[in-house]
Amino acid sequence: MNDAAIGIFDSGMGGLTVLRALMARLPNENFIYLGDTARLPYGTKSPETIIRYSVQAAGALVKRRIKLLVVACNTASSVAIPYLREAFAPLPVIDVITPGAEAALAASPKGPIAVIATEATVNGRAYVRAIRAHAADVGVVQQACPLFVPLAEEGLIEGPIAELVAHRYLDPLMAQKPHALVLGCTHYPALKNTISKVVGHEVTLVDSAATTALSVEKMLRKAETMREGEQSYSFLVTDLAERFARVGKIFLGRAIPMDLVEPIDL
Amino acid sequence: MNDAAIGIFDSGMGGLTVLRALMARLPNENFIYLGDTARLPYGTKSPETIIRYSVQAAGALVKRRIKLLVVACNTASSVAIPYLREAFAPLPVIDVITPGAEAALAASPKGPIAVIATEATVNGRAYVRAIRAHAADVGVVQQACPLFVPLAEEGLIEGPIAELVAHRYLDPLMAQKPHALVLGCTHYPALKNTISKVVGHEVTLVDSAATTALSVEKMLRKAETMREGEQSYSFLVTDLAERFARVGKIFLGRAIPMDLVEPIDL
Repeated sequence: MNDAAIGIFDSGMGGLTVLRALMARLPNENFIYLGDTARLPYGTKSPETIIRYSVQAAGALVKRRIKLLVVACNTASSVAIPYLREAFAPLPVIDVITPGAEAALAASPKGPIAVIATEATVNGRAYVRAIRAHAADVGVVQQACPLFVPLAEEGLIEGPIAELVAHRYLDPLMAQKPHALVLGCTHYPALKNTISKVVGHEVTLVDSAATTALSVEKMLRKAETMREGEQSYSFLVTDLAERFARVGKIFLGRAIPMDLVEPIDL
Repeated sequence: MNDAAIGIFDSGMGGLTVLRALMARLPNENFIYLGDTARLPYGTKSPETIIRYSVQAAGALVKRRIKLLVVACNTASSVAIPYLREAFAPLPVIDVITPGAEAALAASPKGPIAVIATEATVNGRAYVRAIRAHAADVGVVQQACPLFVPLAEEGLIEGPIAELVAHRYLDPLMAQKPHALVLGCTHYPALKNTISKVVGHEVTLVDSAATTALSVEKMLRKAETMREGEQSYSFLVTDLAERFARVGKIFLGRAIPMDLVEPIDL
């Protein structure tokens, strides 16, 4: 059982930043990453569709024998977690919202905390609930930023267009004087420099990849399912493997060899 | 057979502009429109995935007895037409590329002609082939505009952000001095004012909805399958019916009653 892989699921490639943090923290584990690249983005879809797609994607990982599931996609984490836990019990399922909320509270214990995310994540209010579960009185303000994902994917992460769009989304949030800003979508860290320029350096930007990796480590230690041996990783994708390997290496921070990428149909 | 509906398929809601033109031109027909809203956009997907999704979507329309299929999505038209014709022969299949190319040549017989479209449409070079089939010597320049769809969907169709993005995509094209610009994605007409401002009024903007409706009329007349009776229309969608009805009325130009929208699973 300890040799079974850690499964990571994301709507596309953004979740590779979470895999990157996991690989840095857990040097002896096997990882299998599924990117539902044919059906991305999840952030503009209805909760019903996000749940259905998430259960299908997780099912493909479970079939390949995993000991733990990480939902690296904020949108799926926000909407589908209870359904995934029920569908695949007793498999441990870790989301990126809870660690992100904890990191935000660590950075700004009294708030207010600002959250930027996809439409679906904002509408699901999962970050608001997760923050209030720890600190009922902390103010939370949210803003959906639908143009950030296409900007990041087109590499328009700095310059006048990125800044104008960032001002459009962030200026109303900043009027609330938050001390921490949660980057509640795995694509947003690509725009970190522009976001930081617009909100000012006194606002802490919270990216949940590192804290999610820490949660995974804690859970493996508790369940005594840590592995010993050499790290390995592979990928499942629902659209073209070539594009995944090419664009994905930006998020993963290392090359993605094509022989590790298997196209599947969900 | 004449009473069978005209099926229209699009990746989402943009194709409703084509349905609108069809309804204006053919007042006695039944229409059934399928929007694959759960899996949009098609424009960034691989040809293999676009073909698979298009055949599934068309199949759902064929099951409901249609006499003609209109592929209102430029991306699906660019990539999947031969596969759809083969899969559903002898059903007549009309795409939006051929009428768009003809309209562009009518506006600028000697060229050069500029085409803006999704990544998949540009890579498939369908507009280039369709224009050159009529006029081998006409110069064609293409540009993918991936940010135009999210801008249109967020209603950011005018103002400094839309103009900066339009300059980014269109300035290099305008260096080629085209006389016509094909709006090769059903979302782009929403940005018509901004595009026109950036390229200048001497460049004719070509939107294929009206010419596609004309092609459909011609084909029905030729096949003697025109219908007599009152017009009717209904919708199939793969994601939430509510959002389709709400956003879709902008593209269709009239209200979409919820009882005409049926959610389906492909």
